[in-house]
Amino acid sequence: MNAPAHPIEQLHAELADLDWVADESRIARLSQDFSWFSPVLKRQLADKKAAAVVRPRSEDEIRRLVGLCARLRVPITVRGSGTGNYGQSVPLQGGVLLDMSGYNAFLWQRNGIARAQAGIRLWDIDKATKADGYELRCVPSTFRSATLGGLFGGGFGGVGSINYGPLAARGNVLGLRAITIEEEPQFVELRGAEALLMHHMWGTNGLVLELEVGLAPVHDWMESIVSFDTFDAALEFGDAVARATGIVKKEVCFLAHPVPEYLKQLESSLPAGCSALILATAGASEAPLLELVAQFGGSVTYRKTAEEVARSGRTLLEYTWNHTTLNAFKVDKNITYLQTAFVAGQHVEQVKHMEKLLGGEVLMHTEFIRNMDGNVTCTALQLVKFTTEERLQEIMQIYRDNGVRINDPHVFIVEDGKAGGDLPQGFTDIKKRFDPMGLLNPGKVRAWARPGEIAPA
Amino acid sequence: MNAPAHPIEQLHAELADLDWVADESRIARLSQDFSWFSPVLKRQLADKKAAAVVRPRSEDEIRRLVGLCARLRVPITVRGSGTGNYGQSVPLQGGVLLDMSGYNAFLWQRNGIARAQAGIRLWDIDKATKADGYELRCVPSTFRSATLGGLFGGGFGGVGSINYGPLAARGNVLGLRAITIEEEPQFVELRGAEALLMHHMWGTNGLVLELEVGLAPVHDWMESIVSFDTFDAALEFGDAVARATGIVKKEVCFLAHPVPEYLKQLESSLPAGCSALILATAGASEAPLLELVAQFGGSVTYRKTAEEVARSGRTLLEYTWNHTTLNAFKVDKNITYLQTAFVAGQHVEQVKHMEKLLGGEVLMHTEFIRNMDGNVTCTALQLVKFTTEERLQEIMQIYRDNGVRINDPHVFIVEDGKAGGDLPQGFTDIKKRFDPMGLLNPGKVRAWARPGEIAPA
Repeated sequence: MNAPAHPIEQLHAELADLDWVADESRIARLSQDFSWFSPVLKRQLADKKAAAVVRPRSEDEIRRLVGLCARLRVPITVRGSGTGNYGQSVPLQGGVLLDMSGYNAFLWQRNGIARAQAGIRLWDIDKATKADGYELRCVPSTFRSATLGGLFGGGFGGVGSINYGPLAARGNVLGLRAITIEEEPQFVELRGAEALLMHHMWGTNGLVLELEVGLAPVHDWMESIVSFDTFDAALEFGDAVARATGIVKKEVCFLAHPVPEYLKQLESSLPAGCSALILATAGASEAPLLELVAQFGGSVTYRKTAEEVARSGRTLLEYTWNHTTLNAFKVDKNITYLQTAFVAGQHVEQVKHMEKLLGGEVLMHTEFIRNMDGNVTCTALQLVKFTTEERLQEIMQIYRDNGVRINDPHVFIVEDGKAGGDLPQGFTDIKKRFDPMGLLNPGKVRAWARPGEIAPA
Repeated sequence: MNAPAHPIEQLHAELADLDWVADESRIARLSQDFSWFSPVLKRQLADKKAAAVVRPRSEDEIRRLVGLCARLRVPITVRGSGTGNYGQSVPLQGGVLLDMSGYNAFLWQRNGIARAQAGIRLWDIDKATKADGYELRCVPSTFRSATLGGLFGGGFGGVGSINYGPLAARGNVLGLRAITIEEEPQFVELRGAEALLMHHMWGTNGLVLELEVGLAPVHDWMESIVSFDTFDAALEFGDAVARATGIVKKEVCFLAHPVPEYLKQLESSLPAGCSALILATAGASEAPLLELVAQFGGSVTYRKTAEEVARSGRTLLEYTWNHTTLNAFKVDKNITYLQTAFVAGQHVEQVKHMEKLLGGEVLMHTEFIRNMDGNVTCTALQLVKFTTEERLQEIMQIYRDNGVRINDPHVFIVEDGKAGGDLPQGFTDIKKRFDPMGLLNPGKVRAWARPGEIAPA
C-alpha cells in the first residue's frame, strides 16, 4: 500500500482531466494581484502562493473540484483577472487557486438585465449588450480585463457610479448562482439583498458561478479633458457637472495639480500646472457642459466624440479611478494611494481642507459619485508620496480626525478595509451555509478566523 | 373717408386668410385655463377674455400677425393647450390670443435631442421619439394634451424630474427659435442658458416658435401603487425609492391619507385609510422595488407592466402631480391646493412636521424629484380644504414660517409665484430685445408694468 498522497497530488490525480496550470512561475504570477499598489501589502503578500492553479471550463468541473477539495480540506481561493488591489485573490494558505477567467459565457440579456458566468470580462458584457442599447451600470477602470465575478467579489463600482451609485446599491446586482463548499456541493440561487451578502467579501463566504445585473442605457459617450488654472475652480466645476441633472454623464474625475503631470500619455492635453477633469458625457449634453466650462473658467484641452473613441480603441476612462494610480507608478515607483469617502454635501469643503492640510504629500484625485443615499459626493484615490508605513498610517488618521472616512487599501482583512468593522450577522450566516468547513480564501476575515490565524486589529 | 377701424377689425381685415376663431363662446373658453384650481385666481380672472383668437399654421402667418399687432399696438398672449394653473395664458388686456396648438410639427430628432414646433403635444413627441428609444425627460401629468411651448412657458417639469430635475436644469432645454414683436419681426435662435430666460415667463418676454430639448432613454415603465397603513412608512418608503440609485424610476408620488379617497377610479387599488405611493419604475427594477416594499411594510395593490399600460391606454401618471388635484375636484368642489418645495435632506422631517401642524385641513401630496442642485427632495401639491382666502394665505405663511418654500399658485404675477421675487436683469434684457413695445401678455410681470397696471406686492 502506497503512502497517502499529498492532497494537492490527489487533486491532480483524481481530476487529471481539468486544466491545471503546470508552470510554477505562472502559478506564482496568478497568485498575485495589484496589491503591490500598497507598500504594506506588497511586503505582507509578496511570497504568498497557491499550491495549484486550475482553470475550470464547466460547472461540472467546478462541482467535482469543490467536492474533492471539501473532502481533502484544501483551501480554495477564487480569482478573476487579478486586478484587485487588496490581495483579494492572493491565497494566504496555499491550496487551490480557481482562475475563473475561462468560465466566461454570456448567458442572456433581456429588458435591461444581463446574466453571465463569473469569469466573463466586463468589456465582453458591454460588447454583448451594446447592440440592444445597454451597457454595464458601473465598472472599474480595469473593465478591459476585469471580470464580473471579480468586480462583485472585490470591487466597488467606478465609471457610471455617478448615476447608479456603488455596485452595492440595491438593484444593481439582481442575483447570483453559487456553489456550496461541501463534499456534495449544492448549487444555490441567491436573489437581491441576499446575493449582496457575498459582495466585496473577496470570495470568502461563497464561490460565485453566475451573476445577474441591471444594465444602463448606452449613450454616445464623448470624452473630454477640461483644464483649470486653480484647484478650487476645477473641483467646483466637477461638482457642478456631477450635480447637473440635465447633463447626461458617466464619469467625472478630478485630478488636482500635480496629478496630471503623472499622466505622460496625455501630456499634450494637460497644460503645465493645471488641475483637470476627465469627463465622459453624452453628446447631447455637450452644449450645456461647455456653458459650465465657460462659467468656471476652464478650457477643453481634449475632446473625442463617441465615434472617435470607438475608432481609436483608446479611452480616457483608463486614466481614471485606480488607473490614475497605475499611470503614476509608471513615473514614480515611490508613491502609493489612499481611498477615502467624503461626506455628501460637505465634500467640496472637505476636499479643499484636506488639500490645505496635506497638499504636496497627498495629491488629490477624487471621483464624483452618487452614494448609497442617492446623494452626490466624491470618493477619492489620492496619490501619496510614500515615506514610511508609520507616516502612511498618520496620514490616514489625519483624514479620520477631519471627519473623512478612510476605506483603508493597505489591509487584506475584510473588516479592516471598506467594511470598516465587524460584519453584520447575515454575512456569517452565508458563510456557514456556503462554506461550513471554512475553506474559502482563509485568513481574510477576522470573524471566521481560527485562533491565532489573524492578528488582532 | 371712413372712420379708422378698431385695431382688432383691422387685424381681421388685413389678415383675413388666417384661421380666426369666430365663435364668441369658444373665444371665451380659449381665454381661460386651469387657473380655476385656485379660488383666488378664479375670482380674479373669470371675466378675462381675448378680443380675438387666431390659430397660426405657419411661421409666415405668425410673422405677418406679429408685425401687424406691433404696428397696431395690439397685445398678444400665447396659448398652448391651456392646461396651466396660474392664468399664464389668460389675456388680462384683451388683444389677440395666439392658439399655438395647430403649430405642431415634429421637426427632427438625433442622438437624444429632439426639436419641434411649440404647439406640439408632449404625447406626440414621445410617439415620434419612442421608436428610437427616447422620450421626453420630464412632463406634467397633462402630457396628453399639454404642448411643448406651454410646458416651457409655464411649466415646471414633473414625471421624470426624479431623474432630470426641473425643466430649468441646464441641459434639458437646449435651444429655441423665437420671433421679436416688432413691425418687422426678426427670427432669433437662442441657445442654452439664454433660451432659459424665456422659461416660466408665461410668454411675457418672448414668443417661442420652436424648442429643442434633451431626451431620456425609454425604459419599460411599469406602474404600481404601494399602499401603507401609516403616513410615516409610506413617506419613508417613497424617499427610499427616490434615493435608490439602482432602482430605475420615472415617478414617485406620495399620497397621504385621505388623499387616496379622492381618486375614485382607483378605489379598488387603494385600501380604506391607506397612504399610498404611485410609482413608475423599470421592469428590471421590480425585484429590488419589492424588497423595499417588504422592508417598509407596504402592499402592492396595483401593478401593470409597461405592455399592459400601453395596451390599456390608461396610465397612473394621470393621477399624479396636478392631476391628483383635478381628480379631487371631481369629488369635492371646495378644495384648492398649495405648491411647496421642501429643503433637500430635511424634506422627510419637514413633511412629517407640516402634517402634524396642518393635517386634516392640508392633505399631503408630495412628488419626489431631484432639485437644481442634484439632490433628492420632494416638492408638494397639497390639497387644501378651502375656507377663506385669508386662511389660505395664513396656511402658506405657516409653511414659510417653518422653513418651507411656497411657490404660490394663487397669483398670476410672475414675481409673486415660483420666481419668488425680483427677476434677474437677464430676463429684462430679453424682454427689451424681443418685445420692445411691451405687447406680450401684459399685466403679468411687475418689473415691466406700466404705472398702476399691477398693484404692489
